[in-house]
Amino acid sequence: SMFAPSAFSVMSHQPTCTLYPLGNYNFEKKEEIQPKPKQQRLDRIREKYEREGMRNAVDAILLVHDHNHPHVLIFEVHETFYRLPGGKIQPGESEIDGVKRKLNKYLRPADNPYDWEVGEVLSCWWRPSFEKYMYPYLPAHVTRPKECKKLFIIPMPEKCIFTVPRNWKLLAIPLFEVYENPVRFGSIISSIPLILSRFNFNCM
Amino acid sequence: SMFAPSAFSVMSHQPTCTLYPLGNYNFEKKEEIQPKPKQQRLDRIREKYEREGMRNAVDAILLVHDHNHPHVLIFEVHETFYRLPGGKIQPGESEIDGVKRKLNKYLRPADNPYDWEVGEVLSCWWRPSFEKYMYPYLPAHVTRPKECKKLFIIPMPEKCIFTVPRNWKLLAIPLFEVYENPVRFGSIISSIPLILSRFNFNCM
Ligand SMILES: [Zn+2]
Ligand SMILES: [Zn+2]
Ligand SMILES: [Zn+2]
Ligand SMILES: [Zn+2]
Repeated sequence: SMFAPSAFSVMSHQPTCTLYPLGNYNFEKKEEIQPKPKQQRLDRIREKYEREGMRNAVDAILLVHDHNHPHVLIFEVHETFYRLPGGKIQPGESEIDGVKRKLNKYLRPADNPYDWEVGEVLSCWWRPSFEKYMYPYLPAHVTRPKECKKLFIIPMPEKCIFTVPRNWKLLAIPLFEVYENPVRFGSIISSIPLILSRFNFNCM
Repeated sequence: SMFAPSAFSVMSHQPTCTLYPLGNYNFEKKEEIQPKPKQQRLDRIREKYEREGMRNAVDAILLVHDHNHPHVLIFEVHETFYRLPGGKIQPGESEIDGVKRKLNKYLRPADNPYDWEVGEVLSCWWRPSFEKYMYPYLPAHVTRPKECKKLFIIPMPEKCIFTVPRNWKLLAIPLFEVYENPVRFGSIISSIPLILSRFNFNCM
């Protein structure tokens, strides 16, 4: 498995993560998916909170390497908005099943889903109120948070055809480009280099 | 052990971290330790690099809770400088032995060392050149980094007497106070909430 510890990683208490070259992956197009309007996002969270309680969401981190540099697969939607594959967990659905469903929704054809592996949680973000700010901890005295979003690392198949909505672009972005760049990518994506830093990358 | 997965954490691919109340720990004073002058830090790294190669350093993250809020133990030195217990690994010394030696140096009496447990690496920072900037990834095409610093989480004993240099102050600082506060605490300490966010805290 991607997380099998090597001799070095046991010694240093660090997990190993195997990356395959970007060229091992092919990208095809499928029907468009219209992203829900960002403006009404907080209203939707509020509405659903009344019926279902706290929003449970997941994001998937898929990594490749290009010339031995780790890159994250990130969707560019409408040229200015970046997001990871992921979204809301349904009531009664497990987080792991939700991650797999979202990966198939955004990265595979409907008639050819893939049985994804789902790795560890790398970070967890809380939304204490119906505002845009999320925090990587539950702020003090918040007893009824409105959203919890978990980022999972996805052990990559050695090769794969990704099938991407034709109105979205899937980009492989190097770590240095997202690091400390919350203005372009948001707090969550720009923190990815930090939450990956404990891994030993093994670039095949 | 502190990292024994609970039923919930297995389900959610998250480790559990047990925290004890701040009141379980007592703090005593011991002889002063003069911190090396910060101004000459980069010169010292350069000098040693010529003899020993890349500086290997470690920092220890010790956590307690106060009224169920996780707090990090941080030294305040000279009222304006914050640091974690840690420092340079000696040539030939393992990282784990280095963490234990530094914890005893800063937190225990010389004649009564403690056999610390050392947990996982939570993050890893690289210094690509003899400059003050460190990054949570090895920047592209840097083949001879000057320093690698790893942050280890330390499973806490249920109770303990800490013996602290009398010219340093050991503070228990809540996560929200260090979060996004690099001006006061530096990039490394201010990123601690993020690298801890994947843990389920179990406040005893
Ligand atoms: Zn290339
Ligand atoms: Zn290159
Ligand atoms: Zn208190
Ligand atoms: Zn409180």
